[in-house]
Amino acid sequence: MSINNRIADLRQQMNQHGLAAYIIPSSDPHQSEYVADHWKSREWISGFTGSTGLVIITPDHAGLWTDSRYFIQAEQELADSEMVLHKLKVPHTPEYLDWLADTLPAGSKVGLDGWLFSVLQIRALHRVLHQKDIEVTSDLDLIDLVWSDRPALPQAQAFELPLSVTGQSRAAKIEQIKSEMQTQNCDYHLISDLADLCWMLNLRSSDIDYNPVTIGYLLIGPELHYLFIDEQKISADIRSNLQADGLSIKPYEAIKGFLEQLPAGARVLLDPRSTNISLYQCLSEEQVQRGDAPSVLLRSIKNKTEIEHIREAMLKDGVALTRLYRWLEERLQEGPISEVAVAQQLDDFRRAQGDYHGESFSAIVGYAGNGAIVHYRPMPEHCADVKSEGILLLDSGGQYVQGTTDITRTTALSAPTAEQKRNFTLVLKGHIGLAKIRFPYGTRGNQLEILARQHLWQEGLNYGHGTGHGVGFFLNVHEGPQAIGSGATGKAAIVLEPGMFTSNEPGYYQTGDYGIRIENLILCVEGLTTDYGRFLEFETLTLFPIDRNLIDWGLLNEAEKTWLADYHQQVYEQLAPRLVAEEQEWLREQCGL
Amino acid sequence: MSINNRIADLRQQMNQHGLAAYIIPSSDPHQSEYVADHWKSREWISGFTGSTGLVIITPDHAGLWTDSRYFIQAEQELADSEMVLHKLKVPHTPEYLDWLADTLPAGSKVGLDGWLFSVLQIRALHRVLHQKDIEVTSDLDLIDLVWSDRPALPQAQAFELPLSVTGQSRAAKIEQIKSEMQTQNCDYHLISDLADLCWMLNLRSSDIDYNPVTIGYLLIGPELHYLFIDEQKISADIRSNLQADGLSIKPYEAIKGFLEQLPAGARVLLDPRSTNISLYQCLSEEQVQRGDAPSVLLRSIKNKTEIEHIREAMLKDGVALTRLYRWLEERLQEGPISEVAVAQQLDDFRRAQGDYHGESFSAIVGYAGNGAIVHYRPMPEHCADVKSEGILLLDSGGQYVQGTTDITRTTALSAPTAEQKRNFTLVLKGHIGLAKIRFPYGTRGNQLEILARQHLWQEGLNYGHGTGHGVGFFLNVHEGPQAIGSGATGKAAIVLEPGMFTSNEPGYYQTGDYGIRIENLILCVEGLTTDYGRFLEFETLTLFPIDRNLIDWGLLNEAEKTWLADYHQQVYEQLAPRLVAEEQEWLREQCGL
Repeated sequence: MSINNRIADLRQQMNQHGLAAYIIPSSDPHQSEYVADHWKSREWISGFTGSTGLVIITPDHAGLWTDSRYFIQAEQELADSEMVLHKLKVPHTPEYLDWLADTLPAGSKVGLDGWLFSVLQIRALHRVLHQKDIEVTSDLDLIDLVWSDRPALPQAQAFELPLSVTGQSRAAKIEQIKSEMQTQNCDYHLISDLADLCWMLNLRSSDIDYNPVTIGYLLIGPELHYLFIDEQKISADIRSNLQADGLSIKPYEAIKGFLEQLPAGARVLLDPRSTNISLYQCLSEEQVQRGDAPSVLLRSIKNKTEIEHIREAMLKDGVALTRLYRWLEERLQEGPISEVAVAQQLDDFRRAQGDYHGESFSAIVGYAGNGAIVHYRPMPEHCADVKSEGILLLDSGGQYVQGTTDITRTTALSAPTAEQKRNFTLVLKGHIGLAKIRFPYGTRGNQLEILARQHLWQEGLNYGHGTGHGVGFFLNVHEGPQAIGSGATGKAAIVLEPGMFTSNEPGYYQTGDYGIRIENLILCVEGLTTDYGRFLEFETLTLFPIDRNLIDWGLLNEAEKTWLADYHQQVYEQLAPRLVAEEQEWLREQCGL
Repeated sequence: MSINNRIADLRQQMNQHGLAAYIIPSSDPHQSEYVADHWKSREWISGFTGSTGLVIITPDHAGLWTDSRYFIQAEQELADSEMVLHKLKVPHTPEYLDWLADTLPAGSKVGLDGWLFSVLQIRALHRVLHQKDIEVTSDLDLIDLVWSDRPALPQAQAFELPLSVTGQSRAAKIEQIKSEMQTQNCDYHLISDLADLCWMLNLRSSDIDYNPVTIGYLLIGPELHYLFIDEQKISADIRSNLQADGLSIKPYEAIKGFLEQLPAGARVLLDPRSTNISLYQCLSEEQVQRGDAPSVLLRSIKNKTEIEHIREAMLKDGVALTRLYRWLEERLQEGPISEVAVAQQLDDFRRAQGDYHGESFSAIVGYAGNGAIVHYRPMPEHCADVKSEGILLLDSGGQYVQGTTDITRTTALSAPTAEQKRNFTLVLKGHIGLAKIRFPYGTRGNQLEILARQHLWQEGLNYGHGTGHGVGFFLNVHEGPQAIGSGATGKAAIVLEPGMFTSNEPGYYQTGDYGIRIENLILCVEGLTTDYGRFLEFETLTLFPIDRNLIDWGLLNEAEKTWLADYHQQVYEQLAPRLVAEEQEWLREQCGL
């Protein structure tokens, strides 16, 4: 069934409902970034496989809004349909709202499925469209009517993480949340975000590719708490453990009715960014207390046990990457090999490290020009062959029980040009600048980001993505609340706290030619305290050498060279004990020791 | 009459009006930073002479709120009275509001003079105090009742700047504003800010020390415009020039009545940050359109003519400073000399350069430990003697018809210690980092500021003031809207535009020992445009050598040494033609040429 046919079917439904437009976002009822197949309706209607995007269908237009990371990919994927690409000027902004207001006639009606839109998104929609006298109907899941072979809801078994891994019991986490609920004078707290739910309950699963979450809602109450989930996913053992902590299991679909029958005087804390409008409308204005979900900040600050496990995950990842790059060197002598095969081999090496639950995202093996497509994902049907020449960008991560990893290395497979070395070194200078900064407590990510960009800027260069995203603990590879970016508001405006775990990944992309990105994960830690206050620092936890063949050494100053030498010393010392002699030799050479 | 007696008199008035507290801010009816003597009521009631502060008197407490720049000075100046210093945790924040809410009983009444409070300030006051059921009475100028020898309103003659100096006629500026008023669908625009008024009308005066403004209100109308001002300040010539541009002169006091009789349907654009609540209340809610005063941004972007004149002002200032430092070297050989005498001599040298209207602020001649008092101002009665040893911090500026200057140099009067050199060099590295940055259009000051601080942070050091303030054109030395600072909101969150003129002044302060600050004025200019967008840069306009004796050369990298050498080459080449041979020789040596 072609994309154009799907669009035609949807238009027929829209016509029956008197809609001038229908909006299909990328999200699920939990405002997840990655969603289960059941909710990949935006992909189904458009053919666009990127992680972020929004589709609007009108009787005479079909449009996809996405950001610059995906422009090249989207143009390729939309080529065979009537779907038109709308390029976002600013990533993650609802620029489609103005388009709707400009395009639709006054008095018309827009439809959408309220389970897929957050309270905040719907507010913004109403604010813009109300001025134009455009009505919004938010109870229409038209996709369900036209998507005949829609996948079922995921049914993976949930599993518990022991205290030795999480460092904090479920009961203790619930107590922390309840104390915050008391401060805010609330009786209930609704948790829709899947990472929050899994962190709170020390549960994991595989309901969604790459994100080891289970799908459900959690309602923390004054005494009893409720987990709304497909009951088949919960084993008898887990059920009794949950019950021991005051948790009742209810069917996933029961959340709506349960909220509707809460006492009129009950006060429910919910986060308007992660709560969908359909659930929100089950409560009266008096029942709702909008606010930050306390679990978001708590979850982002890794405890000592989690940090010790993350160190172990980094060792595993470093060993797997050592084996991958050694294997690749040998393999390339036999001839080209597909990008997908490289990703598969890395996945195998990671799996062999044990306690491995798969990739933390689909590995980006970007050979030559593919490396310049920021969120490239090689597909078996049409990926490139890696050859022993040019530049390879490899961005990948693993989900170990000990933690989530995310690393990018850029490697010269033959002698790089002077320009490639210059650009790589500018990116490296930025990476080092951020890695070794010390900053007063109270500093935000948007104050730090220039450290990663300034050397590129000086040459009139730049990169079109953020510099650092939060990373979960054996959870989502993209987690808030913090980020290192340029935004005046949002994640980059959050104050960095010790224990926050973030990526450091400046890059440079020469379209059609090659991509450069150097990514390590960095942990925010206490620095020194002086008369001038409390200072924080970053500790780089990722362990794998940065390609020295790509460095223009003349562009590095002494402090940068010292950082790199120290880092490579660390990498070697930490990884060597887990490697055999030939691997140690290879690593020693890569580390310049 | 002692401070305590003044407080006692005020309390008597408060008692008669049934007030639990009376608030005295630093401002005038125009929300000026510097105010005429007539409005120095906060200084009169407290004895504190700093530029920023707020006093609250209750029956049993007298408190002054000010920021860390003034802690040392305030403690000295409040020592002889019952006035207590409240140290602001965050500069420029209304922390006194929480104090009022915590201290005053419910049902009590707070009094203030509404002419001295902006609309925004009063909103914040009501928001906090309303919760505690505390009433605010904003029509009480009690200071006027107790300040028997209060100075009269200033009466300096206004003068016009010719088009050859301003580069834009008054008529053209009014047209720009009217076009913005039309966009916002407004018939009138009220300008309360004195810098805005003077910039708009190409007028200057000397109503306020250091700020060459005239005091008045400007009301731009659909056809006729109105200047509310003491009519004696306007000569017949200027009056007829103003009239030719559609401006009527009205008495200063007539503004209130004039606003009150505007047609009910008239829409008045006003800026709630610079409009006082007494004037605001002359208009109905329907008449008011709150918004940014368009003149603020227009004024901050210097035009080509202004920039050419600023270059001339910088030459004059550089020559005056050359003469001052040469004179000081010789003078110190004869023995110590007071800080005030140094300031006076510099003022004399500036005056000799012509077109000089006095200092742009009271010069900070901070010898040794006084240099560590960030906003130190030497007073004839009790200032220090400068000797030929230790470190001298000199922060000063001039008001020339060609522009406003502001420069700080830190000078070693004897061989500096290794630690002094290290600290100076850390500050210098920050100064250079900001001076030579290139950045994409859209960048805010709060993204850049880390460049100035990072080297101090790395050593656990910091400084307690912002890094860059906007500077007017032969106007106020502190002008918005932009700044280079750490704030998530406010001036540092404003996008930098080409033509904006800002200081670059990192520092370091060793309490009781010495202060370091290196300040140049920098102009935001177009850089290059590449595939990655439009980049901006800073051009350093201030011309005077940075003390090379204070540099630890081992801490500077090659790029920093190159910047400094280039800067000193520029300084010498630009200033030398205006100097006599011995001065050239001295400057050449200072510049390391």
